[in-house]
This record gives sequence, structure tokens and C-alpha cells, in this order.
Amino acid sequence: MRWAIGIDLGGTGIKAAVIGEERGILADRSVLTDTASGPMGIVAQLAAIVADLYNVASTTLDSADFAGVGLGAPGAVDAEKGVLSYPPNLPGWTVFPLRDELQKMLLEKNGLSIPVFIDNDANVAAFGEAVYGAGREFQDFLMVTLGTGVGGGIVLNRKLYRGPNGTAGEIGFMIIDFEASTLHAGIRGTLESFIGKKGIVDLARRMIKASPSGSSAGLLCGHDYKKLSPRHLCRAARDGDVVALAVWQRIGSLLGIGLANVTALMDIRKFVIGGGIAAAGNLVFVPALDQLRRSTLPSMHEGLELVPAHLGNKAGIYGAAALCFG
Amino acid sequence: MRWAIGIDLGGTGIKAAVIGEERGILADRSVLTDTASGPMGIVAQLAAIVADLYNVASTTLDSADFAGVGLGAPGAVDAEKGVLSYPPNLPGWTVFPLRDELQKMLLEKNGLSIPVFIDNDANVAAFGEAVYGAGREFQDFLMVTLGTGVGGGIVLNRKLYRGPNGTAGEIGFMIIDFEASTLHAGIRGTLESFIGKKGIVDLARRMIKASPSGSSAGLLCGHDYKKLSPRHLCRAARDGDVVALAVWQRIGSLLGIGLANVTALMDIRKFVIGGGIAAAGNLVFVPALDQLRRSTLPSMHEGLELVPAHLGNKAGIYGAAALCFG
Repeated sequence: MRWAIGIDLGGTGIKAAVIGEERGILADRSVLTDTASGPMGIVAQLAAIVADLYNVASTTLDSADFAGVGLGAPGAVDAEKGVLSYPPNLPGWTVFPLRDELQKMLLEKNGLSIPVFIDNDANVAAFGEAVYGAGREFQDFLMVTLGTGVGGGIVLNRKLYRGPNGTAGEIGFMIIDFEASTLHAGIRGTLESFIGKKGIVDLARRMIKASPSGSSAGLLCGHDYKKLSPRHLCRAARDGDVVALAVWQRIGSLLGIGLANVTALMDIRKFVIGGGIAAAGNLVFVPALDQLRRSTLPSMHEGLELVPAHLGNKAGIYGAAALCFG
Repeated sequence: MRWAIGIDLGGTGIKAAVIGEERGILADRSVLTDTASGPMGIVAQLAAIVADLYNVASTTLDSADFAGVGLGAPGAVDAEKGVLSYPPNLPGWTVFPLRDELQKMLLEKNGLSIPVFIDNDANVAAFGEAVYGAGREFQDFLMVTLGTGVGGGIVLNRKLYRGPNGTAGEIGFMIIDFEASTLHAGIRGTLESFIGKKGIVDLARRMIKASPSGSSAGLLCGHDYKKLSPRHLCRAARDGDVVALAVWQRIGSLLGIGLANVTALMDIRKFVIGGGIAAAGNLVFVPALDQLRRSTLPSMHEGLELVPAHLGNKAGIYGAAALCFG
């Protein structure tokens, strides 16, 4: 059985695992990202985790079956050149040859000659779902990650579609209301400006304020609306709170409009929805599918489907490992 | 030299030509579409044109080099199955096996055993520009056709991207303002609802009405605003009319927003703009590129480019012939 080491590099933590091609996670590690020590410090952290996991794994797995190290990273990644540019949440990074530096350190410090594959974290999560998760049944799909931001990864014909310059899939930057007051990275009316975490909470605050009877989400955050979170809104909606239900209805509907644009342009009709906000489940999924149908031509309705992601926050390590098997 | 017959089937006319792979149009024909006689009547028309052009061409060209007949048709085309569904402007058509019926009639009536390739007209125009026109220099681009409607065709890696179900490229159905009052096929705030011919003229009427000094476009249409057309608005703008200039500025800007969504999602940065409205040239191109840059992340600005289509209303016959060489 082929095996690989998959790594999900984030601004807060690093998750890594030994993944058997047919058996999934065999061993894993999780550490806080040492952001203070800059790119080379993080390369050292990554090399130490790889060496540790490799040593553990090679006691039971054949090193001849080892396919390499896969790495998902935030920011713009040139997968071909192995270069990571301007990762958000990793201070002090600009343009950095992450793949080559990691390979070099593994060789020089640990005597390990290992091929490293890297890609953008949204792409890697989509690929993880494609190979191990909710996307297995689909040839072509878009994975949307709903969290602090709104990210996307595109799988066409079971392969990642990276686009001519490697920046494809940025559904969060899709403009759905060019006259909106919401801004996101200086761009008006993007999907993320509406349904990113901040957009959801801002909308909820406005709707609670405007509601004569208030909302039980207010109680849940102790009426400290600075602390209001999507989690409070989920709980309130599940308890039948009318305002919270209306918030999710609106968020789902806006997601549906973004997805309709993907269907119109790319003819993609399968959507895998992941990220923390996707925990709202049918509160978002039902209005999203409904709006998606109302916002596309009848000739494009056949096969439209939204499904929840299966791998949760492990999509990244799975997808990273899958880069090595690809 | 390989050669083929390219046909552009429209609701008003049929254009057809013998195209030499390296030499372009060698002979052509143009007739009015006999819409009254239904699908089989049009198949008979097409077969007659093909037989005529084939006979003319084979006096000078080697029939061993004949690559077939390519056909671009309005409506949804399943290129693999050769089926045309619900073409607008062709009354009485539903779902029709156009490719097989044309092949059959060519064989039975004219004794010609000829392979026929068909695709959607927007795709075929994009492919024509890719092989013979403004797209030759681009690996990947979107062609936008600005006319009565707003159509699109996507070329990736010099091949047509049709999508999993063959309906890709419908940029006219991209929603850019979900709260807009404009509707298009029942969908709110689509790009076509703003910058299709009707959207342009409606905007111009509103802006002229609101302008205290009026517009020279009003003179050009004899103040009969039912007759106001994009052509009047072009002439007025070229004469320095402030209102007409502002109309095009707005139309270009809205086009730029639609294109920004394509760049965000697909990482496509090259756009070929064709169709009758594209005659407005820099009146539209300059604000479109400007808005495209302002509506995308700086990391996506490299290589952004808008160019006019080269083949005019011949893109269809060129692209149709190119289907046979592909």
C-alpha cells in the first residue's frame, strides 16, 4: 500500500498525518505554528514533523511505498514552482520557495530525500474531498469553504483545476451586488463580504436590531453583540428563533446566487460545502439549493446538488497526501 | 491542404463557406433561414448548401483532404450526441438530432457520406477566434459576444471548454446585482439584463431623460426614443455627447464586473470581445478593463487583457470549420 505524509499549514496550527492510500490516517500530529520565527523557522518545524512521522511510519510501512510529502498552505501557491506568496496570517512572508527549502532541509538535516508537493489550502481541501470525501461520487464539482472567509476549489474530471496562473476557485471574490455597501479587500459586493463570518454577524446584528421582539441569539451572547457568532445564530435558529432563521435563510440564498454564477459560467452542478459555517447544515443548504434553482435556467437544473463536506478539518491533510498519489 | 465546410445557422440567415485549413474562406454562400418549414425544412436547406459548396470546391480541392461539415447553431447543443434543443428564433423546434438528420439527408439525397460536427453558436464563435482570430495568441480566454444578448465561449488550453453537460460559458446569466430591478429569463440582475441591447437602450433612455441638456443621441433617433439604438449612442459619444459617453462608461464598467467574476473563479485573464455592440470599441473597452482591474485582487492583475474579436460575423463559419480540423 502506498502511503504519504499530508500536512495542513495554517496561520494558527500545523496538522500532519501519515496517510495510507487505501486506509486513511495511520498516525497524526498537531502543533501550533511558530509564526514568530518566520519562513525558515516554519520550514524547520515542518521538517521536524515530517522526520518524526516518517520514522514512526517506517517501522510498519515499506519505505519503498512512500509517495512523498504533500502540503497545503494559505495564500497564493504556484504548484509547479513550489512557491508560496504572501500567505495571510503568516507575518513576514513574501515570496518563498517553500517546496525546495523543505526538501533541502529534510535532506541536509535529516538525511531524507523526499519529494514534496505543495498547493493552496482551498485546492488541497477540495482534492481531499474529491479523493476521500463527499466529492468521490462527482467527476466535476466546486468545493466551497465557509468560514472566516469564503474559499473555493474546483475539481474537473477528478483533477484540480488551478487555472492558467494557479489562482482559480476564488468564489469568495465573486461580485453578486456591485452596488452593495459591503467591501472585501477593497472590492464591492463580493460573496465573501456578504456570507463570510463578518458578513453573517453584521447582517444578524442589523436584523436583531430591527426586530421588535429581539432574538434568542441575543440571550446566547449575553446581549454583548460584539460577541455574537454564527454558533449563537445556529443554536437560536434550531430553537426556532424567527430572526436567526431569517438570517440563515438570507445567507443560504446569497450562497445560492454565488453558486448560480458558477453553474452559468462553468456548467458545474455539484457543490461540496465545508468549513465551520457549514455546520449550520440545512439552515443554509435548503435556501441555497432553492435559490440556485431560481437563479439558473431550467435547462441547467438537471443534476444540481449541494452536499456537506465529509472530512471536516481533515480535508487538508487528506488532500495534501492525495497530491502525492496523483 | 485540409478543407471543410463551415456553417453558421441563425434564426434569420444561414452563412456557409468552404474553408481551407491554412487559407481561410475559399467560397461562401448566404441565404435566409426558411424557419417556416421547421427542422426538416432547414435540414434540406443545409444539405443543399453543403452539396453545392462541396461540388464547387471539389473542382479545385482534393476530396481526400475534406475534413467534413461543421455547424454552429443557436440554443443548447449536445456536441457529443449531435442534438440541438430549443433553439431560440427557430419556431417549432424542440429536441432534434440535427447532426444525424443532416448526415442522413446528405447521404440519401446527395450520395455524400460526410461527417458532421455541431456545437453551440457562442462556442463555435469562440473557437473560430481561437484558431483564426484574436484568440490565436492566447492559450486560455473567454470570448464574450455583445449583441441582442450577451453570450460567451470558453477556450482552455486552445480547446473548447464545454462543461460536464455542455452548457458552459453563459456569462450573460452571471448575476452581478441580485437586488436589481432588471430581469432576464426570470433571473434578477444578470449581466445580460444590464448590458444586452435592451439593457443599454433602457439605461440610455433613463439617462437622457434625467439630463437637463438632453443628448445628441436624441436628435439621431429623431426624438423617437423607441427607435434609440446602440448605434445612435456610439455616434453621439464619438461626437462628444456627454450623456452618451456616460452610458458607455457605465456599460463598460458593468462588463468589467462580469469579467472580474470570470477571473476570480476561473483565473482567465484574456478576453476577446465580439458582437455588434463591440463596435463601440474603446468606449466600452477602456472602462471595462479599468473596472476589471479595480474588481480583482492585485495578485490577479498580471496579464489582464481585453481585445476586440477579429473575425466579425465570420467567427461562426470559421469556428464551425475548425471543429472538423480539431
